[in-house]
Order: sequence, then structure tokens, then C-alpha cells
Amino acid sequence: MKKGIAASKGYAIGYVSIKENEEIIITNDKVKDTKEEIERLVKALDISRTQIEEVKQKAFENMGEEKAAVFESHIMLLEDPEFVGAIKLEIEDNKTNAEKAVSSVSGTFLSIFEAMEDEYMKERAADIKDVSNRIVLNLLGKVKSLEIQEENTVLVAEDLTPSDTAQLDKEKVIAFLTNIGGRTSHSAIMARTLEIPAVVGMKDITSLVKNKDFVIVDGIEGNVIINPDKETIKIYEEKAKEYKKEVEELKSLIEVKTSTRSGKRIDVAGNIGQPEDVNKVIENGADGVGLFRTEFLYMDKDKLPTEEEQFESYKYVLQKMENKPVVIRTLDIGGDKKLSYLPLPEEMNPFLGYRAIRLCLDRVDIFKVQLRALLRASVFGNLKVMFPMISSLSEFLKAKDIVEECKKELKAENIKYSDSIEWGIMVEIPAAAVCAKELAKHVDFFSIGTNDLIQYTLAADRMSEKVSYLYEPMHPAVLSLIKMTIEGAHGEGKWCGMCGEMAGDIDAIPTLVEYGLDEFSMSASSILGAKKVILDQE
Amino acid sequence: MKKGIAASKGYAIGYVSIKENEEIIITNDKVKDTKEEIERLVKALDISRTQIEEVKQKAFENMGEEKAAVFESHIMLLEDPEFVGAIKLEIEDNKTNAEKAVSSVSGTFLSIFEAMEDEYMKERAADIKDVSNRIVLNLLGKVKSLEIQEENTVLVAEDLTPSDTAQLDKEKVIAFLTNIGGRTSHSAIMARTLEIPAVVGMKDITSLVKNKDFVIVDGIEGNVIINPDKETIKIYEEKAKEYKKEVEELKSLIEVKTSTRSGKRIDVAGNIGQPEDVNKVIENGADGVGLFRTEFLYMDKDKLPTEEEQFESYKYVLQKMENKPVVIRTLDIGGDKKLSYLPLPEEMNPFLGYRAIRLCLDRVDIFKVQLRALLRASVFGNLKVMFPMISSLSEFLKAKDIVEECKKELKAENIKYSDSIEWGIMVEIPAAAVCAKELAKHVDFFSIGTNDLIQYTLAADRMSEKVSYLYEPMHPAVLSLIKMTIEGAHGEGKWCGMCGEMAGDIDAIPTLVEYGLDEFSMSASSILGAKKVILDQE
Repeated sequence: MKKGIAASKGYAIGYVSIKENEEIIITNDKVKDTKEEIERLVKALDISRTQIEEVKQKAFENMGEEKAAVFESHIMLLEDPEFVGAIKLEIEDNKTNAEKAVSSVSGTFLSIFEAMEDEYMKERAADIKDVSNRIVLNLLGKVKSLEIQEENTVLVAEDLTPSDTAQLDKEKVIAFLTNIGGRTSHSAIMARTLEIPAVVGMKDITSLVKNKDFVIVDGIEGNVIINPDKETIKIYEEKAKEYKKEVEELKSLIEVKTSTRSGKRIDVAGNIGQPEDVNKVIENGADGVGLFRTEFLYMDKDKLPTEEEQFESYKYVLQKMENKPVVIRTLDIGGDKKLSYLPLPEEMNPFLGYRAIRLCLDRVDIFKVQLRALLRASVFGNLKVMFPMISSLSEFLKAKDIVEECKKELKAENIKYSDSIEWGIMVEIPAAAVCAKELAKHVDFFSIGTNDLIQYTLAADRMSEKVSYLYEPMHPAVLSLIKMTIEGAHGEGKWCGMCGEMAGDIDAIPTLVEYGLDEFSMSASSILGAKKVILDQE
Repeated sequence: MKKGIAASKGYAIGYVSIKENEEIIITNDKVKDTKEEIERLVKALDISRTQIEEVKQKAFENMGEEKAAVFESHIMLLEDPEFVGAIKLEIEDNKTNAEKAVSSVSGTFLSIFEAMEDEYMKERAADIKDVSNRIVLNLLGKVKSLEIQEENTVLVAEDLTPSDTAQLDKEKVIAFLTNIGGRTSHSAIMARTLEIPAVVGMKDITSLVKNKDFVIVDGIEGNVIINPDKETIKIYEEKAKEYKKEVEELKSLIEVKTSTRSGKRIDVAGNIGQPEDVNKVIENGADGVGLFRTEFLYMDKDKLPTEEEQFESYKYVLQKMENKPVVIRTLDIGGDKKLSYLPLPEEMNPFLGYRAIRLCLDRVDIFKVQLRALLRASVFGNLKVMFPMISSLSEFLKAKDIVEECKKELKAENIKYSDSIEWGIMVEIPAAAVCAKELAKHVDFFSIGTNDLIQYTLAADRMSEKVSYLYEPMHPAVLSLIKMTIEGAHGEGKWCGMCGEMAGDIDAIPTLVEYGLDEFSMSASSILGAKKVILDQE
């Protein structure tokens, strides 16, 4: 048995097909005729575009509109004057060959994205890699599509690009295994979208198996068994059957409104990072959106988003949710999330620095654009707004003052907004939890952001390898602060939700229900499992 | 009236004497005869050594043994083979002139020290600057000593070096003003040692006044009044008289044991960063040492300190304190405090990272050397040991297990240690405060480290300019956690102290007394003021 990182749940039993990587050799050779070299480049870009159009069509058939949109961004990159311009310049100025020029320019782009910890940004990095790889292969005349002929195929690869996964035929590929990657790597996300089991980060699986090997993939434990005996196969066939039953059972919960045995109604909502994510949330029968992160509007751009752009995104989600609550969090930029067009101070400890509401209260010009967009969108659904990184009452009151200013402006401009928006805060700084009783008098609701709350409470950055062991959601201090927050809210008749990862953790849910948490918001894929656990509580 | 940073308390009224800086022009000229150039250098080093010996003698007369020791380190730098070797190599290899070689080598040394936030390290940077400046001036034949002839002189300078301040004649210089520097800059520390008022960071005071101008220096508010009218002079003469009276009154408290009006005895102790600092603590009538930072043993060195070295330092302080309690904190390295010989991981948020007890529990080899030294020293006084950055009970228990191991070893080696050492923890992570009740069952005492506790509770790095406004000791959440900690300790019959800056803040003391804090530990200079406030409380 070989262990890896469980990236997508489920069991599969089938035959190995190894994806051979095309050998790419890039030389440092200089070219003589730069004009001719640029013509080669342009031709490769054209071929790449045609190919991506085809992949996009397949993605649409396999995975729906949302994932197909990824390839729209691939095409945009091919046409990006900054990207293509930099490559041409490299060829012209340094007589670099086209392959080398593509790889070095995309390397620069990549290093920017890869340094970010944001999942969305990491996906963008995978996109850039995918596109530049495709261009280089086309320059070398080496593109081959990933055609799988056999049924019951377990695809084994060093890694899978977005293009690779988009082309996977679910009728034939029943699981995949990769050497590299983690739970949030691109291929892992894709596997969950395709709903096929996957184990990633296996290090050397490509050399451990050969084509036609028979393997069992356990996407729950992250195990792979190569050429198992009959006994083992039987055990796993049983497990697969059990699992399928469970999945069916969970699917039956989609329409169910979640209550505890004693009858307390509890909302199970979804976290989203992009407007299109709302579809998955709806598919999984969520009671609302408990966290709509708005950073996507600001990142991966070259300037601040306009009021109109923001308005359209908020409106889209509100309308899609058809009057179910949508909690939108105002800009939480800073820390590890940096913007190219908005220089932020270099800080020794960005997690303890200038970010989120601190930045917004300092840059009221930026904040007001978002607040106006939110107010305008509010008439299209059931909007709740929350401010991140609140550490004291005065920050909330200042933010509300700016909201009032925006309302006045809109009134003067004769633009409508809803009067029933709820205004809440993220409780993610220990100070907010400790002062919950007092804060609850002023806010409409709390949403506990456990990821940060745990980090600050334990003074441990979970991204730091050496101390990540300290990051412990069930630490008594964390639980105390959560309890304090919920009781603080209830004392003033307000509701309290949670939108950190802990909300979707089935081991934590019983305790949180016991504490009286009113709303659990999590990634769409965790919703049904959470519903099941909550239904089981007293 | 001109504002600056109040660096040393008191009032002075006198006449300006501007310290002209010697103009230093360093060229990039190459030398032909490198041998001759090295002879020039050696001669300048010799002259510098003789001068520093003289300065050291004056410092001893003016400021006592402790400050004179600074110049011992100046001489050591002159003789440091690494430092001098690097300069010679620069001359030999690149034919650089001696002035340029000295300034570039010391520049490299400086950049290492200046990047550190530690006060001690900053002083070392001032030392290097001072010495290299002296060597260059000697090379240029330009050294002049700072001779002040007139009484009632207010010295005005761009900045003052350690050599400058050591030579100040307190009979003549009654205050000084500088363009640059902050409260923790070298000149500010020196002013407090000399007990003369000083205002630093005035930006352009050297160009605002001329020699013989009459000025009032208000070292309390950080104000300077240039050529004041009679009325103003009268007001300040009155203030100066008042202040002198207050100082006398405070001095009368040196021998007083501090109790509140209702008779509760409260310990006022001192924080020290080096063994010699204990003298100032004793002079100010402290009840003990509430925090002995042990980082000095590890920093500014090229290898880990031996058990023997550590033992000698701890023993020195314990003996000096003559059975009064001495709380020694185990190694709190990491974060902003790095060691050249101990590579630590690069972290995005070092304040939330691998440091203090986390490092010690990981590097038991390093930890045990310190624990053995502490145990051995324990027979020489009243030792209490505390562990920094404790976030959960398990860390404390692990540390205690390692202590037991060390005890066993010592027993086997027939080395004595005291059986009455108290073992406590720093409460500086929110989790420790929240869990104080539970932790108190296991520890002998708490000491609240407010500097870090405030930073974590509010998720605000006070070194980050953009968010330092959030760092607020009297924030209701901070006060709640402090109260929780004290009550947690008392619930189990344990004592609770505080060794962060808040303990010496006269505005915070009444609240802390009310909460029942048992021990206040602070910088020596704050002790008498704190005693006075405590004596006034119910």
C-alpha cells in the first residue's frame, strides 16, 4: 500500500494508464532572424488558441459552464498584450529563441502568483503554466491530446494541467493519481468537481506502477494498493458500495431543512470566492451564502474594480440565491494577499498588520466604492454585510458612519437601496470574541472566522511549517472564545454564524451545535455531510 | 516652541553650544602602495585605542563601571581580527584607501545590527558607528574631543556618539538636544543614565539655534523654547523646582516597602536584560527582579553560550539580589531576534512562528544547557524560572519533564540545586490568559507579558507604523484577559505578576492594583514612580 494525500473522496478499482510527459528541451540558443522567430511564435499562439477552444468545448460538456470559463481566461492570456508583448520583446532585444522567451516570461508571471497562498491565485498559476506549456509544445511541434481509450482507467501522472483534466472522459477515467500537489492544488480541485476519487502528492507513483497494473484507489484515506489480492479487492468493492450508498443518502438531504432532534432550526450555508461558485452552493441545498469573499474582484487585475463591476457581481449572487441570505464580506486585502496596483507597506508580520477593515478605514475612497455597490445590489435579494478584522467597537462604528455617508449620496442621486440590510462583523481577532457581549449591542450578527481566530489565539501561523502543529481548532481557549462569542450574541438577541473551516468539520459540529451556533457556512462540498451530522444532534 | 521626542525627564535652562560635526570626505581613490596604506591604518587604530582608554576613564568617573564597560567593547572591536582583517583585505585586494575600507566594512557590520529591533543590538550599532568614525577621523587627522568650558550649557548636535556622551561633564552640560534619534536611541539612554534632560529627534534643531542662544529644555513634554521671554522663564523655573522636589520625594521611597492604603503588600520589581543591569534595580529599591531576559547570552556571539557562562551570569544576579526573588525567563529567541550561528526558518509572520518555548521544546539540546545552568545557580539565591510563549498546558508539562531530566543528571553528577525553585509561565498569548484557571493548577506563578499579549489580542504589530495606533493597553479585551489571568492564579492560590511595559505605566497601575496583581516588574527607572502610585491606591 502506498500513501498520498487524499484529494477527492471515493473508491475506484481499475487499470493504470500512465500519462507520459512530452520531453521539453529548451536551449539557450540565440536566433539570427528575430522577425522569423516572432512569426514562429505567432503561429504557435494561433494553434494554441484553436486547441484551447476545443478543450473549452469539452470542459463545458464534462464539467459545465463554470469550469469551461477557465479556458476563456487561457485564451485571454494568449491575447494579453502585456504577456505576448514581453515575449516578443525578449526575442527582439536579446535574440532569445521563442521557446526560451515564452518560458522565461511566463516564469516571471508565475513567480508572482505562486507566492500567494490564496487558492484562487494558485489556480491562476496553474493556468499560466498550462498555457505556456502548450505554446512551447506547439513551438516544438509536440502537442498530443490526452486520449484515453479503455474503460476503468486510473490515470497516473506527474501532475495534471487544467487542460488535461478538462479533457478527461468520466466514462473512461475513474480516478487519478499524481506525484505532486496537495489538497488545494489545481488537479485536486478538479477531481472534486468531476466527483472522481484522487490521491495526489504521491511523490513517485509514476515510477511505482506501469501501464495495465491493476490498482485500488482509496480517495478517503489517500491510499493506493497496487496489484491487490482477491481478498483485498473484495473488501474494497464492499467499501465502494457502502460509500456509494452514503453518497446517495447525502444527496437525499439536499432539499432537507436542517434541524436538531430537539427541533432547533440551524442554517447550513456555503462559502464562495467567486460569483459562479454560487451554483455549487445551490446544488448542495444550502440555506444561503454565509461568506462571499470579495477579494476576487480586486486580485489578478491591473486596477481597482469599478462600482459597476462590483454591483454586477453582488447582484448576480443575490438574484441566484432568490431571497435566501447572502453574507458579503467587505474587502479583506493585505497580509498575504497583495495587489500589484495598490502598494502596501512591507511589514515584518503581515498577519498582524495593515489589512482588511484597517485598510478600508484608512482608504475610505476604496471602501466607499464597495459600499455603494453593495447598497445598490441590496434591492435584488437578502443582503447581509460583514466587516473583517474588527478588533474594537470604534472600528465598526466608523465603518457604519461611512455606510451612512454612502446612503446619503445614493439618496441624493435617487438610487434605491434596501433598508433591511443586516450589518455584522467577522469575529476572528481574540479581542472581538472577548468583547462579544459589548459588540453584540451594536451589530446585527457575528460570523466567527475560525482560521484567523485560531492563529491569533494561539499565536501560531498555520502556514509556518515549524509551528503548524499548534494550530488546533479544539484547543480549550479557542472553544472558550467561540462560546463567549455565541453567548454574547444571544444575550442581545443577535444571531451568530461561523464561516471558518471549523464550521464544516464534522468532528467540531456537535460541540458547536451544543454551544448554540445558529449558522454554519462552509465549502459547498461539505454542506451535505454537515447537514447529516446536525440532524443527529440533540 | 519646538517639539521633539522627550528622551530624558527634567527641566534645564541654559545656553546653547552647538557641536560642529567634523566634515568627513571619503573618496573612492585607489592607493598604489597597499603596504603603506595598511601602516596608516594600523597607526590610526593605535591612536584610537589610546583615545578610547581615556574616554573609558572619564565614563567611569561620570557614569560608573557599567557604562564604562561599553568602551571595553569598543577596544575589543579595534582588536577584533574579523573586523580589522576585513579592512586590511579590502585595502590589499581592491587597493581601496583606508578611510573607504573602514567605512565600507563597518557599514556591513552595521547593517546587520541596525536591522534588529532589540535595544541592546541598537546600542551595539551605535558603538560600531562610534568606533569606525573615530578611526576615520584619526586617518584624516581630525579628532577633537568634546570640551565644554561654560557652565549651564545645553549641548545641541546632529547626534551624540557613546564617546561624546561619556565625556560630557555634568557640571557643565545640563541638557542636550539632537536632530535624530528616538526614545531608545543610544543618546537617549545615555541621557537617562546621566540624569540630565534631553529632547531628541528634533530634526533641525542644529539649524534653528546658534551658539549662546538661551533655551528652555522641557524633557518631560519634549519641548524646547528658544530665547524665551521673562514670563516663560519664570514659569519654567517654577516647574523645574517642582520637578526637583518630586524627584527628591521619589528618592525617599527607595527603602519603602510598597503596600496599598488597605495594607495589601505589592512587590515592585525590575526588568533586566544583562547581569550588570541589576545594580540599577537595586539602587531603585526594587523588591526583586521580575524579568531577567536571557537573550543577551545568545546574541552578538558566534556560538551558543556554554553552561558555565550561563551559570556565572545567573549566579551573579542571584547573589547581588541577596535572596530577593529573581525571575529568570528561559530563552526567547526567534521572531525579530535572530542568531547568526543558529539558522531559523524564514517565516512570513515571525511573531506567529518558531520562537521561545517552541524552539526550546524542539531543540532540547539547547534548552537543557540553560536549564542545567539555572538549576546549578539556584543554590545562590531565590530563583524562579518562567517559560515564554506558553499557549497550552502540554507545553508547560513538556518543559517540566525536561527540567526533571536535568535534575536527574545533576543528581547523578553530585551537583546541588535548590528544591524550592518556583516554575511559572509568561502569559502573553491569548490562549494562556483564557485558560489561566486550568493552567494555574499546574504552575507556581504567572507573569503577564503585556507587550505580546496586546499584540496578539488585537492582532496588531506595534512595530508596523500603519497599525500601531491599534496597540492599546487599556483596550477592554486586554483588561478582561488580564483580569482573567489574575483571577485564575488566585483561584488556585498562586501569585500573578506582570513584566510588560504596562506594569510601569502609572495610568494603568490603579486598574491593575484593583484587579489584584501581586507583582509589578518594570525598567529600573520606573520603579520609584510606580511605588508612589501604588502607595496611593486603596
